[in-house]
Order: sequence, then C-alpha cells, then structure tokens
Amino acid sequence: MAVRLAPPCGLLPVPGIRTATASAGLRRKGGDDVALITLGAHARSAAMFTRNRFRAAPVQLAREHLERAQPRALLINSGCANAGTGKAGYDDARRLCAATAQALGVGADEVLPFSTGVIGERLPVEAIKRAARNCVDRLSADAWLTAADAIMTTDTVPKGASRRISLGGTDVTVTGIAKGSGMIEPDMATMLAFIATDAPLADDPLRACLETSVNGSFNRITVDGDTSTNDACVLMATGEATLDTLQDITDERSQRLCATIAEVMTELAQAIVRDAEGATKFVAVEVSGGATERDCLEVAYTVARSPLVKTALFASDPNWGRILAAVGRARVEHLDVFRVALSINEVLVLKHGEPVLDYTEEAGAQAMGGADITIHIDLGLGSHQATVWTSDLSYDYVRINAEYRT
Amino acid sequence: MAVRLAPPCGLLPVPGIRTATASAGLRRKGGDDVALITLGAHARSAAMFTRNRFRAAPVQLAREHLERAQPRALLINSGCANAGTGKAGYDDARRLCAATAQALGVGADEVLPFSTGVIGERLPVEAIKRAARNCVDRLSADAWLTAADAIMTTDTVPKGASRRISLGGTDVTVTGIAKGSGMIEPDMATMLAFIATDAPLADDPLRACLETSVNGSFNRITVDGDTSTNDACVLMATGEATLDTLQDITDERSQRLCATIAEVMTELAQAIVRDAEGATKFVAVEVSGGATERDCLEVAYTVARSPLVKTALFASDPNWGRILAAVGRARVEHLDVFRVALSINEVLVLKHGEPVLDYTEEAGAQAMGGADITIHIDLGLGSHQATVWTSDLSYDYVRINAEYRT
Repeated sequence: MAVRLAPPCGLLPVPGIRTATASAGLRRKGGDDVALITLGAHARSAAMFTRNRFRAAPVQLAREHLERAQPRALLINSGCANAGTGKAGYDDARRLCAATAQALGVGADEVLPFSTGVIGERLPVEAIKRAARNCVDRLSADAWLTAADAIMTTDTVPKGASRRISLGGTDVTVTGIAKGSGMIEPDMATMLAFIATDAPLADDPLRACLETSVNGSFNRITVDGDTSTNDACVLMATGEATLDTLQDITDERSQRLCATIAEVMTELAQAIVRDAEGATKFVAVEVSGGATERDCLEVAYTVARSPLVKTALFASDPNWGRILAAVGRARVEHLDVFRVALSINEVLVLKHGEPVLDYTEEAGAQAMGGADITIHIDLGLGSHQATVWTSDLSYDYVRINAEYRT
Repeated sequence: MAVRLAPPCGLLPVPGIRTATASAGLRRKGGDDVALITLGAHARSAAMFTRNRFRAAPVQLAREHLERAQPRALLINSGCANAGTGKAGYDDARRLCAATAQALGVGADEVLPFSTGVIGERLPVEAIKRAARNCVDRLSADAWLTAADAIMTTDTVPKGASRRISLGGTDVTVTGIAKGSGMIEPDMATMLAFIATDAPLADDPLRACLETSVNGSFNRITVDGDTSTNDACVLMATGEATLDTLQDITDERSQRLCATIAEVMTELAQAIVRDAEGATKFVAVEVSGGATERDCLEVAYTVARSPLVKTALFASDPNWGRILAAVGRARVEHLDVFRVALSINEVLVLKHGEPVLDYTEEAGAQAMGGADITIHIDLGLGSHQATVWTSDLSYDYVRINAEYRT
C-alpha cells in the first residue's frame, strides 16, 4: 500500500535510448522480469554503486566494464540479486553480458549487468539469455514504464519521472526509472536507478552532476537502515540533442540541466519511500539550526531510523518523547537540549527543550493523522540544515520481510 | 511472550537492604508501581546513567544527590518516566525525595529517584508521596521479587538474579533486579537495574566493578537500537558481611566478587532480551577474528540491529544473505569478504565469503527453528571477539509500540 503514489504517466522518450522487457520466469507472480536499455553510439555514462563490502557479482562486473568502455546497453533482472554467489555468480554475469553483446553487435564490456532480488541464489543463465535476445528484437523508444515495471521486486508501484527543459533554444529531456522498497539506506548510491538525458554532457560535468544529485536524493532516504549489496544508479547522456557539449559543470546551462536531473532523482527517491515495505506514511525529517550539515543529517537519520518513532508514526501517536529520545542519542557534539525546538507538521510541540504551553495532545494527534508528515527539529546551534525522507514501521513491514522467501 | 524466561525463584536477601512496594495508581493494569529500596548506614553505592542528552529529571537529580552523599534509599516508580518535563518535572522529583527522606529520617540528598514509563507526562506527586510513606511502613528483607514486579513497564516477567559465594570463609550475597523490554540499546548503563551485595567494597573497586560488569552485560544488548532517557544501573555494597573492606580491585577476593556481580548483571541483561517486546527468539551474535574488539562489536551490533535480519529470525528463515549484507555495511576498516565465515548454531553456512558446498536450506532452516539462536561470524582478521544479545522483530513489537499510549 504505497502512500499517495500513482504509477508515472507520460514518461518522455529520450532520443538515443531504447528499452524492452521480457520474461525469464524469475518472478513468482509472473510478468516480465528482464529489462534491456540500449544507448546510442555517442552516449556517455557515469554510475555510482553500493559501498556495501559484499558487492554482488553484477556490481563488480559493471564497475570493471565501466572502467574499460562506455556502455551501449544495460541488462537488468529482478527476482534474483546474484549476490553472495562467489566466483560462479561472477561468471554467470559475464556470460549474460557476452550473450547480450553478441545479439546487439557490441563488445561484451559495453554491456553493464544489474540484478535485484533474493540474495544467495544463482541466476537461471539460459532463461535470462533467451529473455535478453527477445528484448533485442523488441526495442522501443517509448517503453520506459514497462521497464520500470519489470525491475520491481517488493515494489507495488512502478517508479519513473520525466522533465523537459529548453537549453539555449533546444528542448532536452530527462527521464528516469527506479526500483526499491526495502533494504533501503543508500550509501553513495541506491537500489537500481537509471536516468537518461539527450543533452550532450562531457564526462566531468556528468560525474559531478551524478554525485550532487544522488547526494541530495537517494542518499537522503531510509526505510530500514539496511544497505543493499546491489545498489546502483546510472546517469546516461546520449548527446542526441542539437547542442554544443556541456563541458563545465559551473556554466549556466549545465547548472540548469543538473538541477533538472536532481529533481528527477528526488522524485524517484521519494517514490521509493512512498512505496516502502508496509508504509502507511511518508515522513520528511527536517533538521535545521545545526552547526554543520553532517550534524543535521546525523540527527535526521537517528530519528528516521528509530523503530519507536516509526511505530508511533504508524499509530498516528504524537509521542514526541520518542523523537526527543532519538535526538538525544544522536552522535552530535555540543547538543544543548535547552535549545531544541520540535514541530510536527505546523504544530509547535517543544521550544527550549520543553513542551510549549498551548500544545495539546489533540493538536498533536491531528498533525500525526495524515499520510504526509513533516517532523521539524531545530537544534538552535547554527545555520545548517538537512532533510531525510522515511516511512513508518507497520505490521506489513514485518509480514513482507518474514514471508519474503516463502 | 518471553523467550524461555521464568520469574526468578529464591532471590536471596542481602543484609543491609530492605525493600517494599505500594501502588500510586500509575499503571493501567493495576498493581504496585512504586518500590522503595533502603540501605544500611555503612553502604557505599556507585551508579551509571544513560548518555542520552535528554536525561530525565530523576536522572539529573540522582546524579546530583550521588555527588553530595551516599544514598540511604532508592525510590522507583513505573508508568511515568518524568522525562521531557523540564523544570517542573525536576521539582516534582525533588519533592518526592524530600517526602521519602522525611518518612525515613534521612537527608533529602540521601534519596535517589528513578522513574520509568511514558515520556512527556508529569508525575502524580501526591499519590507517589503516599505510596512512598506506605512503603516505609512495610520494609522487608525478603521482598526483592515484589520490587522487581513493581518496576516493570512493558516487561511480561519480573527479572532478578542471586548468587552466594564464600570469600575467605565468609558467605556474601549478590542479588539484583532489573526492568526493560523496549527502547533498549544501553549506552554506558541501561534501563533500571539495582544490584546489591553485603560485601564491604571501597569506592574505587566498587566503581571499577560496576563499569566492568555493565560493559560486559547491559552494554552488550540491543532490542531496537533506541537508548532510553532514563537508563540507570546502581551497584550497592552494604558492608554488613564480616569481612575486611575490599580496597583493591586487583586482589583475588575483589576479582571473585566482581566476577559474581558481572554474572548477575549478565543474567539480568539476558533476561531483558528474553523479555524483549514481541520477542520469539533469543539471539546471540558472536563475532570473532576481529582486528579489534571495537570492530567485533560494530559488526555484531550492525547485524543485531538490522530489521531485515530480525524479521528473518522471526520467520525462522535462514536468509544468510541479509546477515552478509549487514556485515558488509558495518563501519569496519579492511573488511575482507573472502575471509568471512558464518555459522548459525552449529551449521556452517559460509567460508571464505561463499556458501560451503554441503550447506543445505534444510539444515539452515532447522538451525533457525529453535528459540535460542547463535549467529557466529568470523572475520578472519585477528584474534579479538565480542558478543551481543538481541531478539527478533515480530508483529507484536509493532503492536506493543503502536498501542503503547492508547
């Protein structure tokens, strides 16, 4: 039950990108579970991967391929993460890249593999090879939504976002898709997310834009504090738009394009939280007045991860004591409880670390009653701020994760 | 539903300690909710408190009183934490200490206040004063178990432990009680725990013994990663046993006494985990082969806190991929995945970071089926080790915490 999240409508084609999906029989519920994304010959790509030390085989191989060549295709499967599978899993991923490359007439290291799903099981290589070949026969410029659907695991709603802006009189498009619902606390990159633009971007601004945008979007969400072994985010610039290549991240056009890319990533990241396993609330934890941004993030994450805060949110219980207790254990130096203010949506609860006189439980309960909640914490120590997005902790989170492999 | 935990039987009286309980009407389910513990005139005490910066009023006042005087009485109430109550809550705690001191004929700063329960509500001071005076009339050497019952909140089983050892021909006793079930991840001290011995211990070894014992017991458990605002652990030595005062923590008698105190604290700490909110499993996460003890603890806590590992435990699902993913995101330098070994109870699952050939899901499922689970992780990097105790994450954890104030 996603929190006020509908499937995206009108995902815009990106010149230079084609996609297709097929079934390899990986998902118990049926439907397509393999997606192929192809890129034109001039495209430049950059990617960020999980910092989890148990990197899945496809993550290892994708990093190696990216060091050697610019990708011409991304092969993605859901249902099986090909993680914890050792050398055999690595060889499986290589065979899939080779078969896909052959069908497309490109080099094996021009194909990047991505997998998501259960950890510790081997991929059905032959079935995925067949599905990949089927995809090659069906590539289309207008199938982003089907791809968003094929890469889902416990997601209940496909996730995508598009923007079109004019750069110096030329229209350029940014379209992205993502999947993710549990095992969500990205560390430099997250889950699977694929974002493409037809604007021509040189490698340096492409990388800079990816890092800035991920930092403000996928690196600002948490569902359960668990970091996946398979997280990856790829930003692709096909260069098909009639525009001089953007060489410098600081110039005005690059800035506007990058802001649009960041916007798309933020929409995707928030969609992941809205579709978090078992979520009944979408919660923004805003922390202001910090001495540093790091302090604000530490406080925001400590509150956003707290099982007690999350169960109170599920119950629509304005149990601000749990929020305070979480703030109080955050690893921030010089925290002064007598400077802390707290509000829930627009209701001021605490000032100077104490309940304000006109706060009532009724007002608090009303603020906690909606589906979209903003918890604002002011530390009263400085001028920095940070926001983290999270969900509540419900019976369904436990059910989904207790039943995941059964 | 505690995991294989029965109420303690045969809690031994400690000469110099008397206890009593009474009702102030604080608990919805009824029964006594105020406990008084008194100490003889020669007793020496030491205490550790939560490091949460939002310390409750009684924690603040107890620290101040301990700096000024040796305690002659501990007044404890359940049902209301007197936390987040500001100056008014602090004054409430002072008035309770003063009234109790008057009834006992001791100084107000010789009484330590402790509160546990809902955060953010004021104490019913007059009702607790009356209950404290009732306690003074009923003090008994043999009412430890009733006290353990009166200090419970979401606990389902009272927690206590006793040992008797002979030191140089003199029998000495160690008895302790504790409460705690949720908001459990101690930071230097935990929940409420009161441990007494009649052995005479000077201040330095008393403090040293408290710190060592807490570090190996209460500081090794986690239920939900949330640190309470009210945690406290008090170690009392009444000095009533006929024995020269133990002055030096390094001598053989002090060492044996302290080992016994540590044993009592470990039994209490494990009882808290066995009675964790919603727990159906008691889980030891043992990490060996670390370069430092800190590394082992970091890995153990990362696994023990992971909601995905905890829901898999609830489902008796040997989903070792989630354990690996948690190990992989622990903040440990130089982690080498190809050295990691994992076993669940006696079943070896992974060696050199990969599944062992003869591992079967059936064997894993059988190992995960019991109520007591040991997850052993060897990092293959050094000779240090550490163990953390935790519980699983069940529907009932969500229910208990969603319904806590309703």
